[in-house]
Amino acid sequence: MTGFTLTDLDALVAKRAEADPSQSYTRQLLDSGVEKCAKKLGEEGVEAALAAVTNNREGLTKEAADVLFHLLVLLRSCQVPLEDVMAELKSRTAQSGLQEKAARRE
Amino acid sequence: MTGFTLTDLDALVAKRAEADPSQSYTRQLLDSGVEKCAKKLGEEGVEAALAAVTNNREGLTKEAADVLFHLLVLLRSCQVPLEDVMAELKSRTAQSGLQEKAARRE
Amino acid sequence: MTGFTLTDLDALVAKRAEADPSQSYTRQLLDSGVEKCAKKLGEEGVEAALAAVTNNREGLTKEAADVLFHLLVLLRSCQVPLEDVMAELKSRTAQSGLQEKAARRE
Amino acid sequence: MTGFTLTDLDALVAKRAEADPSQSYTRQLLDSGVEKCAKKLGEEGVEAALAAVTNNREGLTKEAADVLFHLLVLLRSCQVPLEDVMAELKSRTAQSGLQEKAARRE
Repeated sequence: MTGFTLTDLDALVAKRAEADPSQSYTRQLLDSGVEKCAKKLGEEGVEAALAAVTNNREGLTKEAADVLFHLLVLLRSCQVPLEDVMAELKSRTAQSGLQEKAARRE
Repeated sequence: MTGFTLTDLDALVAKRAEADPSQSYTRQLLDSGVEKCAKKLGEEGVEAALAAVTNNREGLTKEAADVLFHLLVLLRSCQVPLEDVMAELKSRTAQSGLQEKAARRE
Repeated sequence: MTGFTLTDLDALVAKRAEADPSQSYTRQLLDSGVEKCAKKLGEEGVEAALAAVTNNREGLTKEAADVLFHLLVLLRSCQVPLEDVMAELKSRTAQSGLQEKAARRE
Repeated sequence: MTGFTLTDLDALVAKRAEADPSQSYTRQLLDSGVEKCAKKLGEEGVEAALAAVTNNREGLTKEAADVLFHLLVLLRSCQVPLEDVMAELKSRTAQSGLQEKAARRE
């Protein structure tokens, strides 16, 4: 276990967002605006998809890392807290959990 | 704090992957194959990007949740552990951390 | 030769744009707004890319058709004439043609 | 009217595909393989979508040109003739034409 979490990555992105642009790619991305950040996420999603279907597991590992990083940068660019996204996921999960529970009784 | 993490979501995806297809969208996705899972991730990346640039923060919250969910499904479809992706992110972080440290001394 | 051109398709899209929504998918797309049209193009681009890398030539033929159709719908949704896009392509071509010419002399 | 058509562009792509890689971006793309060509199409689809929703008509004109160019390169990379794509579009059109005709009688 690395013990490194998405929340850790988000904290790092927050820290880098305050760094000098000459030293931080994160800061450069944020300075370049939401459209650039959005474009990067879209591109990384495509690249992860292509790595997956070409059975490139090493490539997929790297592209998935890129997707997570660029998703966090885009959220920050739009002032959407990661916490809100996790709350959204939790609420969906709860709902589906009940449905699965009902299904298991059948 | 929801306390709900990406690792929690991944554990749930793993559990749903074993559920009956009639009860689990996750299982249906996995059964439909890697190309379908890859397509979904690509689409969600585009949708998150579009929500971001149209300044739709509520939409972005939901699309970001979709990106995370479909990324985990795609990783599972390809037998790439989330742990490997987090290790990749941690290793990048360490590297950049040193570079930032060096930069701060200047 | 089919003799069917992109200009023919664009003329058809223009005609369908005036049709009753209950009879025309084109009209439905345009009525649903630019974001929906943009999303469709993004998705079709991903699907064409996935068909290509999985060596699915029949699938690529269909996805490429989808890309062309949805690109024309998006252009119409934004009131950008196809003619402007072709003019842009022609101008790039002319430029590169000169460069190629210069290269051949060397 | 420019008189420049998609077929003209395809003929140019075919010609450039035979050029020296040092002089032709088209040739470089084809040499770099189908995955790179596919990735470029996916990216350009995302960029065109983003230009459209941000109401950037000049940007959309250029991105649409990029989509068309990269679609033709990808088709060539996979040995799918543009003619096949146009035939697919024509057959869909004919079908819908009949449906529209039927609808008008009602």
